[in-house]
Amino acid sequence: MNRINQLFGITRPIIAGGMVWCSGWRLASAVSNAGGLGLIGAGSMHPETLREHIRRCKAATDKPFGVNVPLMYPQIDEIMQLIIDEGVKIVFTSAGNPKTWTARLHDSGVTVAHVIASSKFATKCNEAGVDAIVAEGFEAGGHNGKEETTTMCLIPAIRQVTDKPLIAAGGIASGAAMLAAFALGAEGVQVGTRFALTAESSASEAFKMHCIGLGEGDTKLLLKKLSPTRLAKGAFMTEVEAAEAAGATADQLRELLGKGRAKKGIFEGDLQEGELEIGQVSAMIGKIESAGEVVEDIIAGYNRLVNGLDRTNY
Amino acid sequence: MNRINQLFGITRPIIAGGMVWCSGWRLASAVSNAGGLGLIGAGSMHPETLREHIRRCKAATDKPFGVNVPLMYPQIDEIMQLIIDEGVKIVFTSAGNPKTWTARLHDSGVTVAHVIASSKFATKCNEAGVDAIVAEGFEAGGHNGKEETTTMCLIPAIRQVTDKPLIAAGGIASGAAMLAAFALGAEGVQVGTRFALTAESSASEAFKMHCIGLGEGDTKLLLKKLSPTRLAKGAFMTEVEAAEAAGATADQLRELLGKGRAKKGIFEGDLQEGELEIGQVSAMIGKIESAGEVVEDIIAGYNRLVNGLDRTNY
Repeated sequence: MNRINQLFGITRPIIAGGMVWCSGWRLASAVSNAGGLGLIGAGSMHPETLREHIRRCKAATDKPFGVNVPLMYPQIDEIMQLIIDEGVKIVFTSAGNPKTWTARLHDSGVTVAHVIASSKFATKCNEAGVDAIVAEGFEAGGHNGKEETTTMCLIPAIRQVTDKPLIAAGGIASGAAMLAAFALGAEGVQVGTRFALTAESSASEAFKMHCIGLGEGDTKLLLKKLSPTRLAKGAFMTEVEAAEAAGATADQLRELLGKGRAKKGIFEGDLQEGELEIGQVSAMIGKIESAGEVVEDIIAGYNRLVNGLDRTNY
Repeated sequence: MNRINQLFGITRPIIAGGMVWCSGWRLASAVSNAGGLGLIGAGSMHPETLREHIRRCKAATDKPFGVNVPLMYPQIDEIMQLIIDEGVKIVFTSAGNPKTWTARLHDSGVTVAHVIASSKFATKCNEAGVDAIVAEGFEAGGHNGKEETTTMCLIPAIRQVTDKPLIAAGGIASGAAMLAAFALGAEGVQVGTRFALTAESSASEAFKMHCIGLGEGDTKLLLKKLSPTRLAKGAFMTEVEAAEAAGATADQLRELLGKGRAKKGIFEGDLQEGELEIGQVSAMIGKIESAGEVVEDIIAGYNRLVNGLDRTNY
């Protein structure tokens, strides 16, 4: 029995990352209906918008789903209360200290997973008593760890310091990558990029089409002086790269970034002014599919490989 | 039958990277004697030094071994002739166009593998007719691709554009990582960092001890305006980081780097002035072992995992 399936009450240990401007009720319910775990991304939602997405998600699936909450969310108390009040049973927290919210969520019967990018934070997860850990490597889109540890190096490092159910993230968009993650010590995978580019993702068509056209080297981890963020090529990335090459300070980058750029890029499809956040594995994604097709394809690929693996292949 | 074993006449598809200041005849012969493929790293050797290492390696093993040649080597014609004259049957080329040398090496009966970091170069390898491809991800130590594609994302991308025998490199230091690489489409692994820190590596004791003490985030890909290079923490890395943060130009970085710094750092063990090149996976390496122990441990780990893999683990 897979511990991730058991913990969340799902049949496929595939979690759809709770991504800003992508992960609304449509994507979350579609992934949950396919046997995975859909997450609503609270990071880009006002509290009342989140409430609506939770309610619509409940109406669209009778399967378990969750909410991802970045802990630097401005109205964090309000949103956590809302999540509890709406009866959400699974919360993924990220971008903060897992100790802050785990106990309160547990008191309300919520299962808690926390997203990390280093062993140091895995130890904090142990201490906080989270139920599962998502370890996300350098290749992931959007906000990223300062250590730049790749999924290949990160998963075994995390496995060394914790016995908790472990979900690998970063660069995972296929059954082959899922099997690789399992070989490295994970028991589930969190898939962001491939779900961000499905039909059910709330991202704009322009953003999706741009991202499926990306090749190797077309995303870069930038804005390191602020908060390392993987961006896709476009006018804004070019501007950031030039500023950083010239030695721009954190303040200068903050000014350049301004406000609302991720919404502009991902949700509104402004490829010039917008901030385009996507993972490195976008280079491998060539079409827009449904979220259910993605789940089936990953599982089919995993099964094909794990059954065909030549046990004396060396 | 594993194609990498078949191609090189070895019994374990583990190649020891031909690393500057680490990969002399001692390391190469030890890996070959353990059933893997040892490579002599020509990049840090004058031609006559290389000749001596080839001869000593031949005396120390009756198993196949090879030489790694960075194609920007200044006396490239002289060194290739020397390699052919000394009867070396396996050459790994890197840092250049595989078309330049493959045909001439083939004419002399040499098996050729070429090291790449992108699909674009995999296509060049197909055209050049190399016998095998080493695809090296962002987590690798030393010189690195501009695309920053991690091993998890790179191996499936390369597998899509070539049917050639494929060796994964970058972040691989265990049987678990070898199995992950195989799941992603590789048939062999090139291990650098873990062999650089073995007893038989020519690196200085000071460098080895420093590297086994590194943690996550202690290596960084820097010098991107010159040639992206993964460095380990130390006085020189601090200096480079500061210069780059302030917007240093390629010329300024070239001046800062100067000449002979890798020798100083790796071979002479000057942790202050030296350039320390090592992979991200150094964070997982806690002791100096023999190269033979490393080969045995990787194979044992691989076997344990591949035999224990639960085929219904999802």
